[in-house]
Amino acid sequence: MTIDLDSLSALVERPDDEARDRLRARLPRQTGSAGALGRLEDIAVWLAGVQGGETVHAVRQPRMVVFAGDHGIAAKDVSALAPGHTAHAVREAAAGGGAVGLLAGLYGAGVRVVDMAVDTDPALLPDAVARHRVRHSSGSIDRHDALTTAQAEQAFRTGMEIADAEIDGGADLLLVGDIGVGNTTAAAVLIGALTGTDAAAAIGRGSGIDDATWIRKCAAIRDALRRARPVLGDPLRLLAVSGGADFAGLSGFLLQAAIRRTPVILDGIASAAAALVVQRIAYRTPDWYLAGHVTPEPSHAKALDRMALDPLLDYKLRYGEGTGALLALPVVQAAALLAAELPVAAKEEAPAEEAADETAAEEVEAAEPAEAPSLSKQPQPGAPEPGVGIGYIDPDTGQPAFKPAP
Amino acid sequence: MTIDLDSLSALVERPDDEARDRLRARLPRQTGSAGALGRLEDIAVWLAGVQGGETVHAVRQPRMVVFAGDHGIAAKDVSALAPGHTAHAVREAAAGGGAVGLLAGLYGAGVRVVDMAVDTDPALLPDAVARHRVRHSSGSIDRHDALTTAQAEQAFRTGMEIADAEIDGGADLLLVGDIGVGNTTAAAVLIGALTGTDAAAAIGRGSGIDDATWIRKCAAIRDALRRARPVLGDPLRLLAVSGGADFAGLSGFLLQAAIRRTPVILDGIASAAAALVVQRIAYRTPDWYLAGHVTPEPSHAKALDRMALDPLLDYKLRYGEGTGALLALPVVQAAALLAAELPVAAKEEAPAEEAADETAAEEVEAAEPAEAPSLSKQPQPGAPEPGVGIGYIDPDTGQPAFKPAP
Repeated sequence: MTIDLDSLSALVERPDDEARDRLRARLPRQTGSAGALGRLEDIAVWLAGVQGGETVHAVRQPRMVVFAGDHGIAAKDVSALAPGHTAHAVREAAAGGGAVGLLAGLYGAGVRVVDMAVDTDPALLPDAVARHRVRHSSGSIDRHDALTTAQAEQAFRTGMEIADAEIDGGADLLLVGDIGVGNTTAAAVLIGALTGTDAAAAIGRGSGIDDATWIRKCAAIRDALRRARPVLGDPLRLLAVSGGADFAGLSGFLLQAAIRRTPVILDGIASAAAALVVQRIAYRTPDWYLAGHVTPEPSHAKALDRMALDPLLDYKLRYGEGTGALLALPVVQAAALLAAELPVAAKEEAPAEEAADETAAEEVEAAEPAEAPSLSKQPQPGAPEPGVGIGYIDPDTGQPAFKPAP
Repeated sequence: MTIDLDSLSALVERPDDEARDRLRARLPRQTGSAGALGRLEDIAVWLAGVQGGETVHAVRQPRMVVFAGDHGIAAKDVSALAPGHTAHAVREAAAGGGAVGLLAGLYGAGVRVVDMAVDTDPALLPDAVARHRVRHSSGSIDRHDALTTAQAEQAFRTGMEIADAEIDGGADLLLVGDIGVGNTTAAAVLIGALTGTDAAAAIGRGSGIDDATWIRKCAAIRDALRRARPVLGDPLRLLAVSGGADFAGLSGFLLQAAIRRTPVILDGIASAAAALVVQRIAYRTPDWYLAGHVTPEPSHAKALDRMALDPLLDYKLRYGEGTGALLALPVVQAAALLAAELPVAAKEEAPAEEAADETAAEEVEAAEPAEAPSLSKQPQPGAPEPGVGIGYIDPDTGQPAFKPAP
């Protein structure tokens, strides 16, 4: 059965603007000073919108889903990593190890590893990992399609089903990661095609390649871009021709997360490429995503810019496996926790008292809306209004003085 | 008894360069590609140096110490927060609440709150918090000394003792925070005096002040800077004249942490100001510190620059209470954990095997040092050396080609 992307697109809604506004109004009463939590407030307001409840709640069940696949293009020698690395890293991650397992354990996130097209005997992987596999590796996208369209649809649908399974299992914040030698090359092709970037501008050092490898990668991307352009208007064909089963799975996952109103932290260039494909399917989807970090790959920043996503971290990380998304998780957890738990200040009359509990304070303030919270000062009578006129130090008196605005 | 700063200064050693070099050499064998973990590698290498062991170990017992004090200068109306806020926030934090309690709980750090000079009845605070108090608030530093020199020495020594207590209690990573209405003003004076910055350039919006408050703050800092300059050569006098008991306590704490070879994550402008004073006492001390974040206060960046500290986060946070240091903690925990736990790759002959355990792999590699780890490719015979010559795509063949370097 063919996937009807138009129907799916119509299911993607906007985050809840009223919930965002409620939190924006509430935060200064929690912190005592508008903007005191800086970027954390933006994240909290984003969470308010995507959670959509009366108030923000702390992150309860973050889940990392790692999509793995091998890429025929890796045989063109575009990576610093040996081809066997994908299967090795998948086994490590599936066993709770690897960088993804270590960081997920540190931050309290669950991990699911999904083999979409790894170049290894599936019997060597746990069944839970291998049973979603669409095919064995992918075609080399500079000369061949990565997948058939039917395989791309199968992978896309698998990604959607995994999103459903995670959300039905209670996940309230999803993170995506990827494992796959050569996948930065495929990602650069998808992003290059969707943003109109040429090969040389699109690519960086991937897994840490040398000059000779860079040139091979550049040529491969140039050829792959030629094959991608004719199918730009058809996202599933684009994933089949220039992506791979892992990208198709990631894309289905990201789309379904947005449909299910569940926030996602993106990781590196692979998840950014998939998100860019999904943005073509439904332009509102990036509202549901947060960019965990930006990698040194030039096309990563380009993709994030196209989605108006401002990455939380810029640590020149290019390890993959979802490490960048995981590093952003504690920041998002912090924003959610502070917005959920910092009490609204008690009234000014009782500054020496412990802050009343939030509900009580809100009831009081609802009754007396003009009352300022205790943490901030009341404006002083006679003091100039902030921002009106030009303040300066009077050279005669040494005291602050104002010139009224003309 | 007067504190002999010269003797203390001589006790501050360099971090362990050999441990740093060992980790720098080892990391590419753990990640498969030099620099793959980006900034995390720099942090891990810093940790290797300050931990000084054979290998890096994960952060086991992070401890946040919050130094609190009120400032007479706050009566000059330089803050957006009401004067009673310090005592309120100290009580919250001491009870495990407030932003510091929430984030410390989230990231697994213990918290100690120290009242150095809060403007409240000490009977209203837990004894563990109040018993270090040096005095009740501080003099207004634009007209008076904050403390007597004896009080500054007492506070400094208290900070040293608290560092000892924390380190003896098992802390392997310290974080500092501060609570105190008006303390960004005192911090700007200390930094302005030590970096030769004038008042208007030194200050920002602190707790979120309006224009009129900014002008008052500017005048107060200008006057306080005049009082600071004559005592610049004497760090304890400087803390007495222009700092406060909280700054003196922070300074003693930071110095003793460096003496005890224990790393510290700095928070906002107050801890940066104290660290800058301590750098005057012993120029090597900043090697033991990491800047958790940079706040929007202009003199904060200036102080960090003077200490060659590159902040981990720039989220425009000005909440205080150690929130910026705490937000950096998970990043440092991640760097330590990955450096400690990512296995050194097994040898290339066995790519399909699970990586051998680290010790075994190291033994093998010690015996056969020329063997490349499995994650990276062997250089191909005949391939040009990376970086030698100019690579380009041959327009005739469409294949990568090289011009040899002239």
